[in-house]
Amino acid sequence: MTGLACRHLLDIETLQPADIELLLATAEGLREVLQRPIKKVPALQGRTIINLFHEPSTRTRTSFEVAERVLSADAVSIAAGASSLQKGETLLDTVRNLEAMGPVAIVIRHAAAGAAHFVARHSRAVIINAGDGAHEHPTQALLDAMTLREKKGRLKGLRVAVIGDLLHSRVARSNAWLLRKMEADVILCAPPTLVPPGIEALAAVTTRMDEALEGADAVMMLRVQRERMVGGFFPTLREYHRCYGLNVERLRRARADVVILHPGPINRGVEIASEVADGPYSVILDQVTNGVAVRMAVLYLLLLGAPEGLR
Amino acid sequence: MTGLACRHLLDIETLQPADIELLLATAEGLREVLQRPIKKVPALQGRTIINLFHEPSTRTRTSFEVAERVLSADAVSIAAGASSLQKGETLLDTVRNLEAMGPVAIVIRHAAAGAAHFVARHSRAVIINAGDGAHEHPTQALLDAMTLREKKGRLKGLRVAVIGDLLHSRVARSNAWLLRKMEADVILCAPPTLVPPGIEALAAVTTRMDEALEGADAVMMLRVQRERMVGGFFPTLREYHRCYGLNVERLRRARADVVILHPGPINRGVEIASEVADGPYSVILDQVTNGVAVRMAVLYLLLLGAPEGLR
Amino acid sequence: MTGLACRHLLDIETLQPADIELLLATAEGLREVLQRPIKKVPALQGRTIINLFHEPSTRTRTSFEVAERVLSADAVSIAAGASSLQKGETLLDTVRNLEAMGPVAIVIRHAAAGAAHFVARHSRAVIINAGDGAHEHPTQALLDAMTLREKKGRLKGLRVAVIGDLLHSRVARSNAWLLRKMEADVILCAPPTLVPPGIEALAAVTTRMDEALEGADAVMMLRVQRERMVGGFFPTLREYHRCYGLNVERLRRARADVVILHPGPINRGVEIASEVADGPYSVILDQVTNGVAVRMAVLYLLLLGAPEGLR
Repeated sequence: MTGLACRHLLDIETLQPADIELLLATAEGLREVLQRPIKKVPALQGRTIINLFHEPSTRTRTSFEVAERVLSADAVSIAAGASSLQKGETLLDTVRNLEAMGPVAIVIRHAAAGAAHFVARHSRAVIINAGDGAHEHPTQALLDAMTLREKKGRLKGLRVAVIGDLLHSRVARSNAWLLRKMEADVILCAPPTLVPPGIEALAAVTTRMDEALEGADAVMMLRVQRERMVGGFFPTLREYHRCYGLNVERLRRARADVVILHPGPINRGVEIASEVADGPYSVILDQVTNGVAVRMAVLYLLLLGAPEGLR
Repeated sequence: MTGLACRHLLDIETLQPADIELLLATAEGLREVLQRPIKKVPALQGRTIINLFHEPSTRTRTSFEVAERVLSADAVSIAAGASSLQKGETLLDTVRNLEAMGPVAIVIRHAAAGAAHFVARHSRAVIINAGDGAHEHPTQALLDAMTLREKKGRLKGLRVAVIGDLLHSRVARSNAWLLRKMEADVILCAPPTLVPPGIEALAAVTTRMDEALEGADAVMMLRVQRERMVGGFFPTLREYHRCYGLNVERLRRARADVVILHPGPINRGVEIASEVADGPYSVILDQVTNGVAVRMAVLYLLLLGAPEGLR
Repeated sequence: MTGLACRHLLDIETLQPADIELLLATAEGLREVLQRPIKKVPALQGRTIINLFHEPSTRTRTSFEVAERVLSADAVSIAAGASSLQKGETLLDTVRNLEAMGPVAIVIRHAAAGAAHFVARHSRAVIINAGDGAHEHPTQALLDAMTLREKKGRLKGLRVAVIGDLLHSRVARSNAWLLRKMEADVILCAPPTLVPPGIEALAAVTTRMDEALEGADAVMMLRVQRERMVGGFFPTLREYHRCYGLNVERLRRARADVVILHPGPINRGVEIASEVADGPYSVILDQVTNGVAVRMAVLYLLLLGAPEGLR
């Protein structure tokens, strides 16, 4: 095995389990670099990577930028709003123009599902999907899997509950695909208004939170986007918290060694109580640290192939 | 010839033909660096360059940032909106303050014609005009000339049509100056409402597109700024396209080996049909690639003098 | 003396005079690096520093970025508006998340007094306060002191007038603390509506500008924030200028070798006349240059300890 079977990272759905395994193993190897006092390897020196973010993002953009700099790449970031898109340019024209400046990769976040796939069909640069609408967010699922494996030693056979706004969540979708491919046992849970039709083809679904938590090895809580309340998907934040918020009492249904994940930013007192977010089962900040390692692994594998020890 | 006759790059109007020649020759030499896998030369290591953009820009700012990093400079970018200008500071005070932080150069884009010239009169740092109102955009004209010379082998004697909103276009003005200095044969074309008074002193002018295209070696299409429609300069975008949009049929009047340029971002179906923008005559993406080389050349020549082989 | 007594730089109030002395001596030593043609030392190579600015800032953010790059650190900047804060995340969660990405330091500007202190209590990364509401702006006071010492040879015994909006000024507060600790003689001056209650415990206070200027070795003018006018703190900008604006005539009351400081951005014709801002007594741009050296010193001392020659 000398590298990934794909040229871009667009989704988890079309990844092979062997690719996921290689990505995780590479990220686990690179995590060591992040523990050094001098976090710098010359791997991507003299290579430009453009981060094109058409939706606001602190966490993901910063994580990619840090990963790029640790690998010695030249990172250039473009935020929505400062961009030509305001001037009526199509996304494809923006990307083709950026590509003509010679970057080896473009990391793209966009509000439209399929944006990264569309762009990749026409691009010579490597395209990395940093979130496309409600479709996929593959590096998030990879960092979640890396964190699960770090804490649980395996993915296969784990019982993982994914709870919250399934309808609008690219994180849920990418995680469901990944966990299924790695033979974990997934249960999805949302209020009836937030269950997308057809999702039961992907994993077991319930609208009862207690059922989802029963015997869980891991719980992934999804972010409630406050604008959904206005959209009528649920009545109030307090009501949401009462029915689908994770608190210590409710958590008792899970296994004693359960771990709690959240992609962030968290809404304290809405989908997760502070006592849980800050409690001993939370691995939320480990996810963030692993995020840098995963993005380094994605860049490394797509741009340089598998590192020596993993070939 | 050891370098440019000027200390700043403010416009094309006051450049000597020998300076233009040196800039193009240097850019042509540096283009090779951009084809290497590792795009990095240590020329400007330890030098800070500040990009001060008071108008939104993806293309130009990113192109300058990439050029700066390829030359190993430390690039610091400041976008309008995040700036002290909001706090009532004058442009000159902003620039003097930035200068006091020790950059070797400040790249400035500003909505006011003459902004870069004004600033340069009071500045120790090298000033590079990245577009000042409807006045000039010298690096754009240089990259256009570089692209023309790449495709046509020469500038002298070429028949170049520049078509679109001449009234508000700094690109048209810089190109007209450059092409005239390099002895190309320029014809400017716009709707009557968009022909600036006195422009006929600079080049031949027509309001009939077919006349402009007749026998053209190159066609430079200018961007229609949608806000001009509101200003009453033309009735509708469809009307504009019918009279001044470049399509395949109309292009037949040009020479068989014509090349089509556009400074971007393009408005498909307004000033240019997709079939032309994406067609075999279009060199729009070559312009973007050459833009990085031209900006490297500008920085190199202004900050270090002519490279060895060109002295 | 091997380093600072503090782990973070949060304020001047709790700094020891020996710490201030070490910071100034280090900054004076590092200023020499900024006069070299190649402004680069490898001190912080492979270290990431995150600049988290929740208020707009050109000067301070750019100054920190330049300082970080001269020290070879990897600088990642996050501007308010592009941030997760819009998504309802708490400041502490934002900082904890950024910290999990492995930066050695986080530079933070925030509209709330105490923000940096609060964050520092929960942070493993070094926290540097780049301005917290109307509370403190310690690097500004340090660069002011460095400039005073450069021009006057000492701080002890200097008569320094600080004039303007004392009520809302973090700059005034940090300077009053620093000058008092270094045994300078401070007089604070503001219109009655802009004198915070209790400030007389910190330094002498007057509402008469002529009294403040009498025999001053240095005058620090504070910026008038135009929104204060709307708040009813003073009637008009012209009225403000007439009573509390610094002009050449009024300046005669100060010593013949007085120096004029201003943290910027200046309001010409409001708190300071152009003839003074641009005149021979003004050291405003020296402050900006020293700002880079001070920020280098802060980063150096907090992250590496005292440099060789100062141990």
